[in-house]
Amino acid sequence: MLAKVGLIKAGELRAIVKGLEQVEAEIARGRFKFDISDEDIHLAIERRLIAMIGEPGRKLHTGRSRNDQVALDMRLYLRDEIAAMVALVGALRSALIKLAKRQIRTIIPGYTHLQRAQPVTLAHHLLAYVEMLGRDRERFEQAAARTSVMPLGAGALAASTLALDRRMVARALGFKSVTANSIDAVSDRDFVVDFLSAAALTQVHLSRMCEEIILWTSAEFGFAMLPDEFSTGSSMMPQKKNPDLLELIRGKTGRVIGDLVAMLTILKGLPLAYNSDLQEDKERVFDALDTLKPALDLLAKFWPMLRFDTKRMRAAAGGFALATDLAEYLVGCGVAFREAHEIVGAIVRETAAVGKTLEDLSASDLARHSRAFGKDALAILRAENSVALRKVEGGPAPSAVKVRLKELGRR
Amino acid sequence: MLAKVGLIKAGELRAIVKGLEQVEAEIARGRFKFDISDEDIHLAIERRLIAMIGEPGRKLHTGRSRNDQVALDMRLYLRDEIAAMVALVGALRSALIKLAKRQIRTIIPGYTHLQRAQPVTLAHHLLAYVEMLGRDRERFEQAAARTSVMPLGAGALAASTLALDRRMVARALGFKSVTANSIDAVSDRDFVVDFLSAAALTQVHLSRMCEEIILWTSAEFGFAMLPDEFSTGSSMMPQKKNPDLLELIRGKTGRVIGDLVAMLTILKGLPLAYNSDLQEDKERVFDALDTLKPALDLLAKFWPMLRFDTKRMRAAAGGFALATDLAEYLVGCGVAFREAHEIVGAIVRETAAVGKTLEDLSASDLARHSRAFGKDALAILRAENSVALRKVEGGPAPSAVKVRLKELGRR
Amino acid sequence: MLAKVGLIKAGELRAIVKGLEQVEAEIARGRFKFDISDEDIHLAIERRLIAMIGEPGRKLHTGRSRNDQVALDMRLYLRDEIAAMVALVGALRSALIKLAKRQIRTIIPGYTHLQRAQPVTLAHHLLAYVEMLGRDRERFEQAAARTSVMPLGAGALAASTLALDRRMVARALGFKSVTANSIDAVSDRDFVVDFLSAAALTQVHLSRMCEEIILWTSAEFGFAMLPDEFSTGSSMMPQKKNPDLLELIRGKTGRVIGDLVAMLTILKGLPLAYNSDLQEDKERVFDALDTLKPALDLLAKFWPMLRFDTKRMRAAAGGFALATDLAEYLVGCGVAFREAHEIVGAIVRETAAVGKTLEDLSASDLARHSRAFGKDALAILRAENSVALRKVEGGPAPSAVKVRLKELGRR
Amino acid sequence: MLAKVGLIKAGELRAIVKGLEQVEAEIARGRFKFDISDEDIHLAIERRLIAMIGEPGRKLHTGRSRNDQVALDMRLYLRDEIAAMVALVGALRSALIKLAKRQIRTIIPGYTHLQRAQPVTLAHHLLAYVEMLGRDRERFEQAAARTSVMPLGAGALAASTLALDRRMVARALGFKSVTANSIDAVSDRDFVVDFLSAAALTQVHLSRMCEEIILWTSAEFGFAMLPDEFSTGSSMMPQKKNPDLLELIRGKTGRVIGDLVAMLTILKGLPLAYNSDLQEDKERVFDALDTLKPALDLLAKFWPMLRFDTKRMRAAAGGFALATDLAEYLVGCGVAFREAHEIVGAIVRETAAVGKTLEDLSASDLARHSRAFGKDALAILRAENSVALRKVEGGPAPSAVKVRLKELGRR
Repeated sequence: MLAKVGLIKAGELRAIVKGLEQVEAEIARGRFKFDISDEDIHLAIERRLIAMIGEPGRKLHTGRSRNDQVALDMRLYLRDEIAAMVALVGALRSALIKLAKRQIRTIIPGYTHLQRAQPVTLAHHLLAYVEMLGRDRERFEQAAARTSVMPLGAGALAASTLALDRRMVARALGFKSVTANSIDAVSDRDFVVDFLSAAALTQVHLSRMCEEIILWTSAEFGFAMLPDEFSTGSSMMPQKKNPDLLELIRGKTGRVIGDLVAMLTILKGLPLAYNSDLQEDKERVFDALDTLKPALDLLAKFWPMLRFDTKRMRAAAGGFALATDLAEYLVGCGVAFREAHEIVGAIVRETAAVGKTLEDLSASDLARHSRAFGKDALAILRAENSVALRKVEGGPAPSAVKVRLKELGRR
Repeated sequence: MLAKVGLIKAGELRAIVKGLEQVEAEIARGRFKFDISDEDIHLAIERRLIAMIGEPGRKLHTGRSRNDQVALDMRLYLRDEIAAMVALVGALRSALIKLAKRQIRTIIPGYTHLQRAQPVTLAHHLLAYVEMLGRDRERFEQAAARTSVMPLGAGALAASTLALDRRMVARALGFKSVTANSIDAVSDRDFVVDFLSAAALTQVHLSRMCEEIILWTSAEFGFAMLPDEFSTGSSMMPQKKNPDLLELIRGKTGRVIGDLVAMLTILKGLPLAYNSDLQEDKERVFDALDTLKPALDLLAKFWPMLRFDTKRMRAAAGGFALATDLAEYLVGCGVAFREAHEIVGAIVRETAAVGKTLEDLSASDLARHSRAFGKDALAILRAENSVALRKVEGGPAPSAVKVRLKELGRR
Repeated sequence: MLAKVGLIKAGELRAIVKGLEQVEAEIARGRFKFDISDEDIHLAIERRLIAMIGEPGRKLHTGRSRNDQVALDMRLYLRDEIAAMVALVGALRSALIKLAKRQIRTIIPGYTHLQRAQPVTLAHHLLAYVEMLGRDRERFEQAAARTSVMPLGAGALAASTLALDRRMVARALGFKSVTANSIDAVSDRDFVVDFLSAAALTQVHLSRMCEEIILWTSAEFGFAMLPDEFSTGSSMMPQKKNPDLLELIRGKTGRVIGDLVAMLTILKGLPLAYNSDLQEDKERVFDALDTLKPALDLLAKFWPMLRFDTKRMRAAAGGFALATDLAEYLVGCGVAFREAHEIVGAIVRETAAVGKTLEDLSASDLARHSRAFGKDALAILRAENSVALRKVEGGPAPSAVKVRLKELGRR
Repeated sequence: MLAKVGLIKAGELRAIVKGLEQVEAEIARGRFKFDISDEDIHLAIERRLIAMIGEPGRKLHTGRSRNDQVALDMRLYLRDEIAAMVALVGALRSALIKLAKRQIRTIIPGYTHLQRAQPVTLAHHLLAYVEMLGRDRERFEQAAARTSVMPLGAGALAASTLALDRRMVARALGFKSVTANSIDAVSDRDFVVDFLSAAALTQVHLSRMCEEIILWTSAEFGFAMLPDEFSTGSSMMPQKKNPDLLELIRGKTGRVIGDLVAMLTILKGLPLAYNSDLQEDKERVFDALDTLKPALDLLAKFWPMLRFDTKRMRAAAGGFALATDLAEYLVGCGVAFREAHEIVGAIVRETAAVGKTLEDLSASDLARHSRAFGKDALAILRAENSVALRKVEGGPAPSAVKVRLKELGRR
């Protein structure tokens, strides 16, 4: 750009580009010698360049300041890393979708308040995570859009008197737009907050996922067995498999929330424009990335290896968890919801009192409580049948889940 | 919708609607009697409705659960409140833009590290906030989009066996889409986190703004005088005007960050689906709204009343703050940037040593340091001239600021 | 004090005291009229006092400022509230100790990684919370000590030229010491942070407690039944008892952490001395108190009403959870720990392979794996016996628990 | 201890100790070979020990678990590190006290709301920080006390059947007491929260200090000059010295608050006993230490090198900032405070209206407003005299400051 607008000559341009390529090669090979007097990477490179190519090197820094340069570097770095995050979130979603396709008819109890509530399908449960991760992806994409704005030309804070072509630089670096205010350009780290907000919520989602698998793989739930590759055992207690990986991911949630808190606190009450407090953005970003990327990657590998005990799931999903569906049966027959609710309440109490569950009832048992019960009422009292009826959009019925899987496949 | 799909009859529909209108009127007039046995607002209304209209009232709750209902209520509430926030952010932006239009040529020192760096225009400085607030508005709009998804029909967590028409409900309530997974629908409070993230960063922006005005209105800066309406004084020290309002807004930043932390912590490690922990979302949202809404409103009223001391601003903006522009003058003449930097450094040291500033220099003083200085070099050493040259896109020059103001006006 | 040092006369003192008592009575009876022009409570009271008693009222504010007064008020308030907290923490500890005394011999599985690890006694488990709460109490007491320092006399920030007797005021108000620096006295809210830190950690402890009871009362664990008074049910599913109270307490943890974050963020980067940002301390403190006090109180009432299913606990505590004790038996016989570990590992694998657990083994089964097993080895394979042997200081054996209960009783 | 209670023989003890010394030496020399199959440092050392000394090495792990060992390691580490923190806080306090001794008579404006309020002495201002740091030290000492409790013997969570002598181990490791409950011992990280709470508040104090110096060294305040060693400059603008160090310390406050948030969030809702989430404690502690230790150290070196411009300070401290003292003069003469306040208010308004300040007034000017003004009233209107009168305990008068310095010296 500097050559194009006439601030450096074609020969100088060639010398600088060639010199920078050599510097890059030296750094790549670990041969670049840093000097404490360099103050930072920008000056270190310039020093070396001047040593190599002489005079043209002294023009390298034309029209820019370390303040706009560091803003650029952070935006370039984060743009790429967010793209990597989007891919990793996508990979975990794909793993869950693939798994869900194999569990469309598997019955599992749905919980509210950690109490068994109603039977659902395992596929439907897994797709709940897919929805969360879909929102995470969108959030990262929106963060990326706000990150992809080119700040060079803002100078230290007051732009430049030189005839810089900022749009040309933006195009060359793959940015769609340029920052609209030079003071804002050097004091803005909102895009870092955007990233950390998205990262914190994604990690919270992973922690919810991990919490559930930890529950499922406890002796008490027994819904799944941890794969050996993802658990630590004990040679003494071979039945004991510790879900370390999942606990660590859950534990690391605090860390990413802490990174977000740190960044917001750094910005709080900071006058314009650039202040060195902003340097703290880097480690917060690195920390969040180093936490979230392997977590996403490992969970995508973990899910396919988790072995489900579908019999225990099914066994836990029956019984009184079918009461709501039974009441809705009556509603379908024209009984007022509140009345249906009361009738089924009476059935449940009576049944529980004699140590039975709803699945043990006969048609005459039902008829005794309400004449509205038809012959087909008993069918409701099989979890499979009951789930199959809950086929409204977004419901757990295999048919509804298939519709959703098809939609997800189209994207 | 229940009538449309045949779950209630037309007469029942009319009775329910009329009854609910009466309940609404009773609540509005403060005549509704709540009873502790009602457990929550949903059951209270149903009880009263049944007392009024009898049997049809018992069908009110058909096809829904308090779990999907509370998700709906929160989404309806937040959708409207976010719209209000967008408007308030817009109003503050407008106030700043209007003010900027009157200060296009006012010179103010630009700061980095709270040290005077280079002169800019006051309009340009004010527009830096406009950029921040523009991003805030976008963030709120994106939060609104994720909030505007209709959850009814998700039931307690497992949807319904009834033939509910969820799309019809969504249209009637002004939602563009429906939730795609019933388990996610009742356990999702991500839209609350979205709102609180946007709110926290907006409040951080306000805190930066307040910090600067507090500095400007100190005796030491003296760039502006607080309007009496927005300061508390002391009958003893009439010269003392305390920027209470601004300090309070700055102080309340911790609070909104705290609300965000609270919500993320609530969700961390929570298994699916609904858990009562989620009830805590309400007060966090109310608290953030009660903090941010008056802060935005007051600042929009405050800015037009702030009295600037443009002479003191101008006086602080000259002197050595012009050094960078002088160096860029040399670069424009073909001197390598690093050399220009060294030449001007020598000029500054020499000038400071004799107790003068750059504005005191003559053409011959400059010529002594470099033959590259032409007759027009002296013009650079007037802040007005120097700022006018920094007219690249996003620069502080009046011409560049006018371009930006025009763009902002178009939206 | 003002009278004592001669700044007001005895008659004025009497008039002021009498007047203030009348003001207090008016406020108590709701008859005090606040006026918006009063600015704050201090000026409102002074205005009313002057209206009542005339001239002496105009001496009320002698030697003090609202800055040191508000610091005093906060310290007085918090001193009392922390004392209330210490009492509530103590009451919860007492409830747990009382309960533990009744469960000294009840066997419950101890968990690591939410996997059953080794049997312990329920009393021992409950006393783990007592230890946590003991540290909480100490933390509150230390916070109280730093709160109980008398700031009056610091004035606005620069103390007073009057011959105030600060020590006399401190004694009268029940403070042990006075603040040592007037600038610090008005800008210090560290004692608020002290309180909020202690509150946040205490609430975290309550959240751990609630999490465990939620697990225990799930269908899967089935270790305990929620008392009706502390759960919400469903008329349709009488078997379903939702642990709302416990979920809410767990959920409110985020809130108290948020209060702490808010206060630290408020103080960050605040120059000395008084700034209005500090006004935000009040609501954070009120919020934490309003959260923590009922939580402590309710849990103290909740625990005695929780019904344990000691049979299910006992059944879950046997089996392979005894492996570690078996290995230690060998160590006691002189077998190297690592070897003992390997021997028992082989026993467990072999036993599990044939679908049995350790409790099913005979003496000859053991002897086959190691000649070190004596006749008494089989006794180890009863959870009761095994727990009884773990009687080192701080161990779960009934004998060790009794020792600890005695110690706790002495305090 | 194991030898003492007879679990290993004297010869085994010697072999183990000698072997461990060799392992230590290998690690120190970087010759120790870690193997990925070792799982952790504990097993790596045991493996190497067994390879070196054979059978006795297999007894190393007798009576302990990695769960109690890691708790011990963290407590040992933190105990030492907190001691180092206490020393560093002490060194910074000493530097401030030493500096204060040289500035007992230097006048500086005291600020409230960043508005000049009343003159104080620089020594008094510096001692405000000494008070804060004194509380920080106390907080660290209390954290150390709760850290110095010996957990070994708690095993995995259920203690041990072996006759371990925990008190002997505690004495050998320099602990005053042992943990009282084995379940609590392995799941407790409260001492980490204690440390992080103390660290966060200390860092907040440093941020307040840094904020003030940044203000003082701005061109607008001009109260002090940054030492070259602690600022970054610009060869172009030699008058510009950036307070990078101070900005970085201020910025890092967010980070330490983030560490505290992370740890509290990790513990929230975690069931007993050990969970791998707790592993996250280490990095949070390291991060806080790596931030706070150099910050304390650098500030202790920084303060003595800061060059004050006492003339500018003095010039800013006069004028209307003396109004409060003038009013108190009248109070001393028997004028009611509120009346004195009004009289001085009138004087200030009148004086300001004619462009003068209080220091320009004559005795007759004063007399015109109140007959209570004596000949000595004018003396009040010299900042030095006025400050000297504010000599109550904790006041800024040189005499009061000397008393406090003497007290601080005694400790």
